[in-house]
Amino acid sequence: MHTIIKDLNWRYATKKFDPLKKISPADFDTIKESLRLVPSSYGLQPLKFIIVTSTGLREKLHSSAYNQSQIVDASHLIIICSYRNINDTHVDEYIANVGATRNITPDTTKGYADFMKRTVNEMGEDQKLQWNKNQAYIALGQLMQTCATLKIDATPMEGFNTEAYDTLLDLHNQNLTASLVVPMGYRHIEDQTQHQKKVRKPLDDLFTTL
Amino acid sequence: MHTIIKDLNWRYATKKFDPLKKISPADFDTIKESLRLVPSSYGLQPLKFIIVTSTGLREKLHSSAYNQSQIVDASHLIIICSYRNINDTHVDEYIANVGATRNITPDTTKGYADFMKRTVNEMGEDQKLQWNKNQAYIALGQLMQTCATLKIDATPMEGFNTEAYDTLLDLHNQNLTASLVVPMGYRHIEDQTQHQKKVRKPLDDLFTTL
Repeated sequence: MHTIIKDLNWRYATKKFDPLKKISPADFDTIKESLRLVPSSYGLQPLKFIIVTSTGLREKLHSSAYNQSQIVDASHLIIICSYRNINDTHVDEYIANVGATRNITPDTTKGYADFMKRTVNEMGEDQKLQWNKNQAYIALGQLMQTCATLKIDATPMEGFNTEAYDTLLDLHNQNLTASLVVPMGYRHIEDQTQHQKKVRKPLDDLFTTL
Repeated sequence: MHTIIKDLNWRYATKKFDPLKKISPADFDTIKESLRLVPSSYGLQPLKFIIVTSTGLREKLHSSAYNQSQIVDASHLIIICSYRNINDTHVDEYIANVGATRNITPDTTKGYADFMKRTVNEMGEDQKLQWNKNQAYIALGQLMQTCATLKIDATPMEGFNTEAYDTLLDLHNQNLTASLVVPMGYRHIEDQTQHQKKVRKPLDDLFTTL
C-alpha cells in the first residue's frame, strides 16, 4: 500500500485537539508553501489565507461557529478567503507576475490577458464569487493531504456565520469573503473519534468505466 | 525542503501528453483509492468518477472541450461528476454505511441523520448542486497532489461544454453532472511548457496574520 493511502487513512476530522501540542515552524512553513503552490483557474490565485494567532479573535470566531472547540484549541487556525469581485486589475497583476517570473514582455501575453479579461468580465458577480470559492476548495483538498503527509490533524469547516466572520476579519473592505475555516494541530488523546472506522463508499459505487 | 514542495513544484498543467506512456495499474489503483478517501461535507461523498477508456468516446469529449489534445492523448481520463439533487435517500444510504462499517444501530445515528436531512432539504436545487460541485473541487485538490507525489502529470480542466458532456456520458438519467475533467499521464518531451518557471504570488501577498 502506498504511503499516500496510509496517510489518508490516518487522517480524520478531529473533534478535540490537544491545546498543548503545537505545529513546528518548519512544518508550518511547508504548509504555507504548499498553499502557495496550489493550482487555480487561469493561475489567478483569487485567495487569501488568514492565520489567526490572536486568542481574543479566536474566541470571537469560536462563538460565530457553533462554539466548535477546535477553533480555540487547535495549534493553528487558517481562514481560506476568496476574492469577491475579480476584474481587469487582478488579471493585470497576474500578467505582470508572469512577465517578471519568466522574463517576457507584455506583448507575448497580451492575447492571453485579453482572453482572461473577457472571461472574467462576462461573469456576473455571483458567478465570479462562486468561481473564486471553487478555488478555495482546491486549496482545501491539497491542504488536507499536506497535513496528512506531515501527520498533522486538520478539521475542515463550512459551518460558520460567514457574515460575522467577514466582519470580524475586516474582509468586506478587502473585497474578500471567508470560504473555509481550517483548525490544524494534534488530536487529543481523549478524542474518541480517532478510534472510529472511516466510512467511505465502496469503489464500485464511486467509479464507472466507459 | 520537504518532498511535498518538490513534488508540487514538479507538477504543471501539462499541455501535451506522450500518448505512448501509460499509468501502471498499481499507480492507478492508488489514485482511485485516494479519491475514495477524499473528505466531503458530512461524509456524503456526492460524487461519481467516470474513467473513460473508449477511444470513440474520448474523441467526442475532445470535440466538446475546445479540441484540447490532452483529452485524447493522456494515458487516463477521469470526469469528476457531482450529484445534482441529493435528498433523504442519500443520507439514508450514508447512515446505513456508517452502521455497517462501525457496527452500530440506526438509533445511535438518528439525531445526526435527521440533522443532515433538515440541512439538505432546506437547500434549493441550485444550492445543493453548488454544494456538491464544491466537493468535486476538494477531490481535484487531492488528486493533483496524489498525482504529483506519484510523478504522474495531470491537467485539470473547467473549459468544456457541460451540456454536451452530460449527454455524451448519459449523466442526466443518473442525477449527475460533469464538474471537472482531468486527463492524466506523462508529459511529452516536446511540451515546452514544462520548462517555464512556475508563476505564483509571493507569500506576503497570500498570507496575513491576525
